[in-house]
Amino acid sequence: MAHGDGGAQIICMGGKAHGEEDGVEKNMAAWLLGIKTLKIQPYHLPPLGPHDVKVRIKALGICGSDVHHFKVKRSLTVYAIFGHECAGIIEEVGSEVKSLQVGDRVALEPGISCRRCNLCKGGRYNLCPEMKFFGSPPTNGSLANKVVHPANLCFKLPDNVSLEEGAMCEPLSVGVHACRRAEIGPETNVLIMGAGPIGLITLLAARAFGAPRVIIADVDDQRLSIAKNLGADEILQVSSNLQDVEEEVLKIQTAMGSGIDASFDCVGYQKTMCTALNATRSGGKVCLIGLALTEMTVPLTPAAAREVDVLGIFRYRNTWPLCIEFLGTGKIDIKPLITHRFGFSQEEVEEAFETSARGGNAIKVMFNL
Amino acid sequence: MAHGDGGAQIICMGGKAHGEEDGVEKNMAAWLLGIKTLKIQPYHLPPLGPHDVKVRIKALGICGSDVHHFKVKRSLTVYAIFGHECAGIIEEVGSEVKSLQVGDRVALEPGISCRRCNLCKGGRYNLCPEMKFFGSPPTNGSLANKVVHPANLCFKLPDNVSLEEGAMCEPLSVGVHACRRAEIGPETNVLIMGAGPIGLITLLAARAFGAPRVIIADVDDQRLSIAKNLGADEILQVSSNLQDVEEEVLKIQTAMGSGIDASFDCVGYQKTMCTALNATRSGGKVCLIGLALTEMTVPLTPAAAREVDVLGIFRYRNTWPLCIEFLGTGKIDIKPLITHRFGFSQEEVEEAFETSARGGNAIKVMFNL
Amino acid sequence: MAHGDGGAQIICMGGKAHGEEDGVEKNMAAWLLGIKTLKIQPYHLPPLGPHDVKVRIKALGICGSDVHHFKVKRSLTVYAIFGHECAGIIEEVGSEVKSLQVGDRVALEPGISCRRCNLCKGGRYNLCPEMKFFGSPPTNGSLANKVVHPANLCFKLPDNVSLEEGAMCEPLSVGVHACRRAEIGPETNVLIMGAGPIGLITLLAARAFGAPRVIIADVDDQRLSIAKNLGADEILQVSSNLQDVEEEVLKIQTAMGSGIDASFDCVGYQKTMCTALNATRSGGKVCLIGLALTEMTVPLTPAAAREVDVLGIFRYRNTWPLCIEFLGTGKIDIKPLITHRFGFSQEEVEEAFETSARGGNAIKVMFNL
Amino acid sequence: MAHGDGGAQIICMGGKAHGEEDGVEKNMAAWLLGIKTLKIQPYHLPPLGPHDVKVRIKALGICGSDVHHFKVKRSLTVYAIFGHECAGIIEEVGSEVKSLQVGDRVALEPGISCRRCNLCKGGRYNLCPEMKFFGSPPTNGSLANKVVHPANLCFKLPDNVSLEEGAMCEPLSVGVHACRRAEIGPETNVLIMGAGPIGLITLLAARAFGAPRVIIADVDDQRLSIAKNLGADEILQVSSNLQDVEEEVLKIQTAMGSGIDASFDCVGYQKTMCTALNATRSGGKVCLIGLALTEMTVPLTPAAAREVDVLGIFRYRNTWPLCIEFLGTGKIDIKPLITHRFGFSQEEVEEAFETSARGGNAIKVMFNL
Repeated sequence: MAHGDGGAQIICMGGKAHGEEDGVEKNMAAWLLGIKTLKIQPYHLPPLGPHDVKVRIKALGICGSDVHHFKVKRSLTVYAIFGHECAGIIEEVGSEVKSLQVGDRVALEPGISCRRCNLCKGGRYNLCPEMKFFGSPPTNGSLANKVVHPANLCFKLPDNVSLEEGAMCEPLSVGVHACRRAEIGPETNVLIMGAGPIGLITLLAARAFGAPRVIIADVDDQRLSIAKNLGADEILQVSSNLQDVEEEVLKIQTAMGSGIDASFDCVGYQKTMCTALNATRSGGKVCLIGLALTEMTVPLTPAAAREVDVLGIFRYRNTWPLCIEFLGTGKIDIKPLITHRFGFSQEEVEEAFETSARGGNAIKVMFNL
Repeated sequence: MAHGDGGAQIICMGGKAHGEEDGVEKNMAAWLLGIKTLKIQPYHLPPLGPHDVKVRIKALGICGSDVHHFKVKRSLTVYAIFGHECAGIIEEVGSEVKSLQVGDRVALEPGISCRRCNLCKGGRYNLCPEMKFFGSPPTNGSLANKVVHPANLCFKLPDNVSLEEGAMCEPLSVGVHACRRAEIGPETNVLIMGAGPIGLITLLAARAFGAPRVIIADVDDQRLSIAKNLGADEILQVSSNLQDVEEEVLKIQTAMGSGIDASFDCVGYQKTMCTALNATRSGGKVCLIGLALTEMTVPLTPAAAREVDVLGIFRYRNTWPLCIEFLGTGKIDIKPLITHRFGFSQEEVEEAFETSARGGNAIKVMFNL
Repeated sequence: MAHGDGGAQIICMGGKAHGEEDGVEKNMAAWLLGIKTLKIQPYHLPPLGPHDVKVRIKALGICGSDVHHFKVKRSLTVYAIFGHECAGIIEEVGSEVKSLQVGDRVALEPGISCRRCNLCKGGRYNLCPEMKFFGSPPTNGSLANKVVHPANLCFKLPDNVSLEEGAMCEPLSVGVHACRRAEIGPETNVLIMGAGPIGLITLLAARAFGAPRVIIADVDDQRLSIAKNLGADEILQVSSNLQDVEEEVLKIQTAMGSGIDASFDCVGYQKTMCTALNATRSGGKVCLIGLALTEMTVPLTPAAAREVDVLGIFRYRNTWPLCIEFLGTGKIDIKPLITHRFGFSQEEVEEAFETSARGGNAIKVMFNL
Repeated sequence: MAHGDGGAQIICMGGKAHGEEDGVEKNMAAWLLGIKTLKIQPYHLPPLGPHDVKVRIKALGICGSDVHHFKVKRSLTVYAIFGHECAGIIEEVGSEVKSLQVGDRVALEPGISCRRCNLCKGGRYNLCPEMKFFGSPPTNGSLANKVVHPANLCFKLPDNVSLEEGAMCEPLSVGVHACRRAEIGPETNVLIMGAGPIGLITLLAARAFGAPRVIIADVDDQRLSIAKNLGADEILQVSSNLQDVEEEVLKIQTAMGSGIDASFDCVGYQKTMCTALNATRSGGKVCLIGLALTEMTVPLTPAAAREVDVLGIFRYRNTWPLCIEFLGTGKIDIKPLITHRFGFSQEEVEEAFETSARGGNAIKVMFNL
């Protein structure tokens, strides 16, 4: 590994070496050994590259994709660490690092792009085909005491932003990227389909971008009341029945009193996408964020004939500074989304994943390491 | 009708008045009286508004939507004239018209927007909810000897552009608008699904916008050989079988040797849209122009997860000057698309529509009035 | 005047006809008869077109351009009415008007574009070469009891927005248009040169668009303290000495702690533009709003070599709905800018203009008619 | 130098080491030792990084900035190599390089950005504050037998593009970047001020982007006749007298018969910029490429009041693939711009720089190494 840029995260079998020492204390990580089988074991980090930092992870949130890995374990041939929503404290800095110093509290952007391909050079590095992303095999994740990561993907937190909030920059980034792509601003009335974690985060982001009115729809009235508390102007309980699309679109338009300029489908089911397509005004935009279904039967041509564009969203790019700005100035209060907390013991790790997998009133489950 | 802007085209029952005279000669139009029942009858024009011109129609092309009206007659309660791809000669100008004079040869943009709504004022007049469009009930079309139309929607043709070519500005505009929305330029490799009239026109437009390489796919090898003659770099005969999408996407990518930056689905079937979505590179665009199906089952989420955006296309806006530029400078030679010509007699009108309806080697059927 | 769209404002000599009656009461206007010579005289309105409304003007603000006319009287051959920042109550509606009714309280957008030229059709109607604009000769202004105006340029005010605030939509529109052109949002740190009315309004608009930090610079510390009260994060008293640019740019950058992403020169002097060009970060934008000087000696090439773009601002387009939204939701409180109020008598009209011309603590001088 | 990315170009004093060997043959470079004092001396290359290649330079063009260095020698404390318009043959590839192999003919993009700062990550890497650019002190240039360079900045040439043409990708990139920023396409009528190398190249680029009509103005009629031969629709000989701006603008507008949508000032004098600002239509764009003057007195406010935007141009980004496409397909024939050729001996190097410095009929002076 000649040049080190976060190369640390490439799975190395050395991870299995139990007795090894990383200075005085062992670096431990939660390894997924099989379906629903996690074990805290030593994780050997590679040497620090000149542009890298070593971060002691202090807060890490569980993402739906982590839960999915936990339940079905994608890759059976190697051990794997997952987790990618994290923040921590700088423990060591590489020789070329000027922007950070030991002791800095930082939020970590989890994906390391190649920086050399056309997509990277053109500013769309989130689409880089050689992305190494925490917890996306074969790259290890960050549910560990320490990780090595490029300094320019570690963003210093101001004093009034906690490490837990720092970890929340990752899911918040999805909403921020979607709002940027949809060009949300003070003239954009917004519909959000789905009041799960991503729907709620998109609501917070849309408000922070200045959306004057936001309506959010879900089948679960408990989630809708959370959305209401987080600042939705209107909430609408919808059915899961496709026959109801027309009627619900009418309710959305009536509640909003004017056209929907941009919709976010944070679910990715046929019904949510149909509703978003039909409810959006001529010339508006629909962002497809949720990925529940691979194929869906949707009225795409009538939407196209009103020049309603469908924009895809994949992760994010260059979002951490803005997220930290939103959190630091109080434009976004993300803390209410953190519903459960666990420590980093063998028992608690498993319980945390089970809690997140159960859903229910768990929005964001957070580790304090 | 206080201020006349093309108000002329609103269907007026006076159209039935047979004996009426428009100066020395009667203005005749082709009225659709029932399914596949056309009759040439007098068409009484309203007085000219100050910003209007009267145009003697000389060339008119049959559009697929006209054929559809002919076969199923949408509106049964009133007589209707259709036709909207046309060019002619100015016969009279309104009192405020400065840009045109009697005798000018002009191509007509068929839609009159309200000019007052937010979409008009924002520059997206093609989406105006109060659009009056030639041949879209209740607005009459232009398959008539003469029409009254706003001067600013009549575009003077240079000497080297024929009236038939002028009439072709309308379908060409669809391709031009799609190329603009997809931002086609010298860096955009293009896939076109469908080698029908709109597919072929989109091919011509994409070349004129500088697309370096264009591949076009169709089930019909005769249409593909026309596409080849019109300048497609690559042609691909595809099946109508959904199972073949993956294999055909591979063929497209191999033939092009690099990614597809923008795709145009000029058909609007499930298979064409699946192919377009899957063949387009991460961060690319798919324009949906064809409207064959209302609903379609498509892999929208995998495309969204590569930030492939789906752009809708509805008609066009501000395209005539550019179309005329392309035709006048020879950047586009549209004449090969005109395959059949008919006069404006009772017999020929019916035969023309039957010819267009049969399809086969008929690409564009043109009236010379 | 065949088609009426606000044609009413074209100066008609009939304006001199003293004895004429407009129903039971005469419509009176303030006519500029010579330098600093205003006289309230009858103003005969043309008949209402089908898309027009008649508005009883209730509030009108004096603009710097009005003061300029007052002092130098541009056109000597005809009488002229000026004034263009206004709001009022609908008294009569044309036959085709559906969006408004008698009694509605409305703010008036003062410019009537031709709606037919390429710039209008392309959505940049503010640049229409045939614009008829209240008070821009030969078009009369709106300092009158009543005016006739196109309905689609009259915007209904919600109950919680006063008519005075409605009149303020006009100057606010300049700031809103500038913020749109400069793409101000939650990631744009802003520098404003000049704390006069337009500078202060641009400050309010930038905040409403979400600018996280705004610094404003002026020579006058009283104006700066107003800016501070209106929400500027930083204020900087600057000199009028060109030698100080470098030092002041350093102060601006130090105070902001990060780069300036967008600057607004609301003055248009050499020094203000030099400061804006030099203070803006590589790849940022400078909006030139103020028009104090026609020619200026500026370091344009060093800015160009950092891809700092200079954007021109001319009036506004499609801004009233957003201004009303900002005022109605309280995102912008424009009332503190209204410093003086006058009635519509002969004496008060002259005093109002003198007050505005004196400047000093007068920011916006308002008529209550 | 831990990870090598083109770090090779940082000036290392080892460059002075005469007797050193680079394998069997010494790598020689043209070192600038003082004003107009060049000496061919050994140039010691650092070891190849894993993402680097070693290129044997075969063609190198002299740029105006090189001539400037030659005449005034900016940095006196260290020896310096300059030259940055180059192409060559791959001699060695780093361990991670997959896109290139030994023997490939490549054109070199001369600037190595940091890839980590906000501007790099946002896709505007040409503005990177840590750019290391061939021949911009303290980074050495490429007028040498061999250089080490990042593989992703070396672009493979097709068989029908010569190495000399490959070297011309660098100046061509300036024109391509300017055309992209100004959004040149089939609807953009173009004015170019200055028919020097950059003006001529911008002409070629504008044509390749589809500009329908281009007019070019210069004081030198010989340069104008070259421009005519290269495809300018109109040429205009202008004076260097500021008084003539108005008359010349009129001539430009008359010759073009319609508005100028985009202007390129390839000189950067007051007069050229005044002409560009005044000749461009409302809502158009002026690109400032030439940098002759630092400060200029220009009518910026009247242009701003017509929303004519001034766009800065700094070098280029992501342009090589498009340049090679243009050259390979024959859309651009750049060969006529190469007017003089020299070998890489002590005498010829000096003569080449003198030839370029004299100007006259020398457009591009090329070394064949």
